[in-house]
Amino acid sequence: MNLTDFSSPVFAQWRENATSDWSAYTHHAFVRGLADDSLPQKAFLHYLVQDYIFLFHFSRAWGMAVLKAESHEELELASATVNALVNHEMPLHVEICAQAGISRQALLDTEEEPENLSYTRYVIDAGLSGDFLDLLAALTPCVLGYGEIGTRLAAVATKNNRYQPWIDTYAGKDYQDTCHAVGRLIESSTRARLGSSPQASARWKTLNRHFRVATRLEVGFWSMGMRGGN
Amino acid sequence: MNLTDFSSPVFAQWRENATSDWSAYTHHAFVRGLADDSLPQKAFLHYLVQDYIFLFHFSRAWGMAVLKAESHEELELASATVNALVNHEMPLHVEICAQAGISRQALLDTEEEPENLSYTRYVIDAGLSGDFLDLLAALTPCVLGYGEIGTRLAAVATKNNRYQPWIDTYAGKDYQDTCHAVGRLIESSTRARLGSSPQASARWKTLNRHFRVATRLEVGFWSMGMRGGN
Amino acid sequence: MNLTDFSSPVFAQWRENATSDWSAYTHHAFVRGLADDSLPQKAFLHYLVQDYIFLFHFSRAWGMAVLKAESHEELELASATVNALVNHEMPLHVEICAQAGISRQALLDTEEEPENLSYTRYVIDAGLSGDFLDLLAALTPCVLGYGEIGTRLAAVATKNNRYQPWIDTYAGKDYQDTCHAVGRLIESSTRARLGSSPQASARWKTLNRHFRVATRLEVGFWSMGMRGGN
Amino acid sequence: MNLTDFSSPVFAQWRENATSDWSAYTHHAFVRGLADDSLPQKAFLHYLVQDYIFLFHFSRAWGMAVLKAESHEELELASATVNALVNHEMPLHVEICAQAGISRQALLDTEEEPENLSYTRYVIDAGLSGDFLDLLAALTPCVLGYGEIGTRLAAVATKNNRYQPWIDTYAGKDYQDTCHAVGRLIESSTRARLGSSPQASARWKTLNRHFRVATRLEVGFWSMGMRGGN
Repeated sequence: MNLTDFSSPVFAQWRENATSDWSAYTHHAFVRGLADDSLPQKAFLHYLVQDYIFLFHFSRAWGMAVLKAESHEELELASATVNALVNHEMPLHVEICAQAGISRQALLDTEEEPENLSYTRYVIDAGLSGDFLDLLAALTPCVLGYGEIGTRLAAVATKNNRYQPWIDTYAGKDYQDTCHAVGRLIESSTRARLGSSPQASARWKTLNRHFRVATRLEVGFWSMGMRGGN
Repeated sequence: MNLTDFSSPVFAQWRENATSDWSAYTHHAFVRGLADDSLPQKAFLHYLVQDYIFLFHFSRAWGMAVLKAESHEELELASATVNALVNHEMPLHVEICAQAGISRQALLDTEEEPENLSYTRYVIDAGLSGDFLDLLAALTPCVLGYGEIGTRLAAVATKNNRYQPWIDTYAGKDYQDTCHAVGRLIESSTRARLGSSPQASARWKTLNRHFRVATRLEVGFWSMGMRGGN
Repeated sequence: MNLTDFSSPVFAQWRENATSDWSAYTHHAFVRGLADDSLPQKAFLHYLVQDYIFLFHFSRAWGMAVLKAESHEELELASATVNALVNHEMPLHVEICAQAGISRQALLDTEEEPENLSYTRYVIDAGLSGDFLDLLAALTPCVLGYGEIGTRLAAVATKNNRYQPWIDTYAGKDYQDTCHAVGRLIESSTRARLGSSPQASARWKTLNRHFRVATRLEVGFWSMGMRGGN
Repeated sequence: MNLTDFSSPVFAQWRENATSDWSAYTHHAFVRGLADDSLPQKAFLHYLVQDYIFLFHFSRAWGMAVLKAESHEELELASATVNALVNHEMPLHVEICAQAGISRQALLDTEEEPENLSYTRYVIDAGLSGDFLDLLAALTPCVLGYGEIGTRLAAVATKNNRYQPWIDTYAGKDYQDTCHAVGRLIESSTRARLGSSPQASARWKTLNRHFRVATRLEVGFWSMGMRGGN
C-alpha cells in the first residue's frame, strides 16, 4: 500500500474514482504556489482567515461524528479529533494569523465566503441525511488530502520557502498520525456497515459521490484563496 | 406472502427475528381487552390522551424521514405520511377525545408519561445516529403493528364492542393502504442501501435491533395505558 | 401594513435590515428578464432544472421544520408546506420541464450547481445549529421573496410574455395564501420565543444574519441561472 | 452565591423551580445508600454497567453540543467535555468495572435498560428540536447534580465506605472544576440568547421544562439501579 493511502484501501479507491477532481484539488495553482513560494502572501492570508472560519464548522462536523458514532472506536476517534481541531489546531491558527498581523478580533469579524460556507454545510448535511460513514466520506478529502499535499510539498518545495511552516504542519508526524488514524477509521467503519466487499455494496456510489463533491469543494476553496490575492 | 406482511418480505423477517417481543406487543392484555371489550374505559382514555402526545412526536419523526430522504420515492411517501398524521389523524384524535369528554385543552395540558417519551425519542435518535433505513426500521413496529392488530381484531372482536371505532380505523382501507405503501417503502429503501440480500449485510443486525427495541417500547406503551385504568 | 409584508411585521423588519441584498435579489437581471421577456430561454431552463434539485432539498428543509416544531401550529403548517412542495409543486415542475422537452430522467441526471448546493445546505444547517425560528428565518427569503416578485411582475410584465405561467404561479392566489400563512407563522414563532419585542432580543442579530445570508444565496442562484444562458 | 450553584445563578434558578424533583434526585435512596454504605453492591454494579452505556450516549449528546455551538467559547468547552468523557471518564469506568470482576466484553454485551435509554434520547432530542441552550438545560442535571451529590457525600459519608472512590471522583477537584466550567457556560449561553433577564424570556418555561424532565429521568435512573439489587 502506498504511503499516502494512509492505511486505507477504501480511501485509495475513493480517490481513484475521483481522479481528475482529486488532481485538480491536490495540484491546484494555490498548492503549486505554496510549493515554489510564488503564492502572493495576500492570497495566503485570505485563505488563512477563511480557513479559521472553516475550522469552526469543520469541528462542528466532527462533533456530528461524535453524535453519530455507533461503536466505541468511532466515538473515541471522533472525540479525539474534535478536541485536536478545537483546542490545538484552532489556537495555532490564531497564533499564525497574529504573527501575520491579523488580530483575533479581525478573524472573528471576517465574513464567510460562499465557497467556504458551501463546503462545510455540505459535509454536515451529508452526515445529517446519511449515517456515520456518509459523513466520514465527506470529511475525508480535507483530512487526507492535506496529509498527501503536505507529504509531497515537504519533498519538492523550494528552499527558504515562506510557506515552510504550513508545509511542516501537514507533513509533520502529528498530522500524519492523525491521517493514519482516520484511514483506519475509514476501514473499520466501512467494514461495519458494508462488509468486506464495499465496492459491491448498493451504497458505494453514494459514498463516492460524497467524496467527489467534497473534493470539488476543496478546489473551490483554493480558488477562493487565489481570488483574495488579486 | 401473508396479507399482514404488507407487501414487505423484509418486514416479515424483522418481525420473525423479534417473535417473542412482537407477540408480547400484538397480543398484549390491552389489545385483548380491546378485542373482548373488557378494557376499562379509563385505561383506554389514558392511552388515548397519551397517544395524542405520541402522535406529535411520531409526526416529528416522519418529518425527519422527509429530511433524511435520499430518493424522490422516499421524499414523497414520507411527506404524504407526515401530512396524513398531522392534518388527518391528529384532528381525528381530538374529535374522539372530545366525544369522550376530553377537551383539546386537557389534551394539551397532559403530561407525557415516561413510556411515551422513551419511545418517540428512541425512534428519532435511531434516525439521527443512522440513515433513512435505520429510522424506518424504528418507525415500522408502530405503523405495521397497528395494521396487523386492526386486521385481527376486526375478525375476532366481540359484537357491540365499545372499541369498534378504534378497530375500524386500523382495519379500514385507508390505514391498510398506508401499511402497504410503507411496506413497499421498506423494500425499496432496503434494496437501495443493502442490495438484494439484506440479511447478508453487515447492517442487518442493527436494523433488527431498532425494530426489536421499538417493538418492546410498544409493549411498554400498552402497559402504561393499562396502568391508567387502575 | 404593506401587501407584500405578508401579514408579518417581523418579516418586514428582516427585509428592511437586508435592504441592499433584498433589492439585489428581487430586482436581479434574471427577474428583470422575466418581466420584460428578454431572458434567454436557455437561462430559464437552466434555472428550472436546478430549481427541481433545489426543491428536493428545500422540501427536506421543511421536513426539518416538522422535526423541530414545538407547537401544534408549527407542526401543522410545516407539514402542509412539505406536502404542498413535494406532492404538488414538484410534479408541476416535472410537467413544465416536460413541456420544454426536458424529460424526468434528464432532471434526475442533472448535476447540482455549487450555488444551488450551498443555498439549501446553509438553510438546513441554520436549522440544525439553531431552533425552529432560526430555520424559519433562513427559509423565508425564498418563500416570501418569490411571493413579492410574483406580485410585482404580475403588475409590470410585458404582454405575451413567455414567462407568464411562471409569473402566474407565484402571483396566484394559492401561492399568495401560502405566503400569508408563512407570514403568520413567522409572527407566532417569533412571539413564542422572543416575546413581543423581538428586536430587543439577544437573538435578533442572528436571525437577521440567517435572513441576509439566505437572501444573498438567492442572488447567487439567479446568477447561476443567467450563466446557463451563455 | 452558594458553592453548589457552580458559578451559575441561572442553574440555581432552574434547580429552585424544580425543587421537589431535584430533591427526589439528589436525596434518592440510592444516594443515601452510597452515603451510609448500605447500598447493596449488586445495585451499585447494576448501576455501574448501565452508566457505561449512559456515558456512550451522554458523550454523543455533548458531541451534539459541539455541532450546535454558535460561539468559540461554546465550541471549546463542549469539545473539551466530549474528550474528557470519552477518553478519560469512560476508560475509568472500564477500570472500576474490571476491579469488580466485570469484563469490558460484559459491559459491551449489557442490554440498555428503558430508564437509561429514555434519559439520553430525551436529552439528544431536546437539542435536536431546540438550540444549544435547550440542549444545555437538559445536560445540566446530570453534570451539576453529580457535582452537588459528590460534595455533600464527601462531607457526610460514613468512614471506610465501600463507595468512597465513587464519592471522591465527583467531589474531586477535576470534576468540580468541570462543574464550574459548565456553570459559566450556562451563564454565557443564556446571556447570548435570552439577554440579561432570562426569567422574563418567552423561552424560560421551555428551558425549565427540559431541566425538570431530565431531573426526573435521573430519579428513574437511580430507581433502575436499586432494582438491580433485588
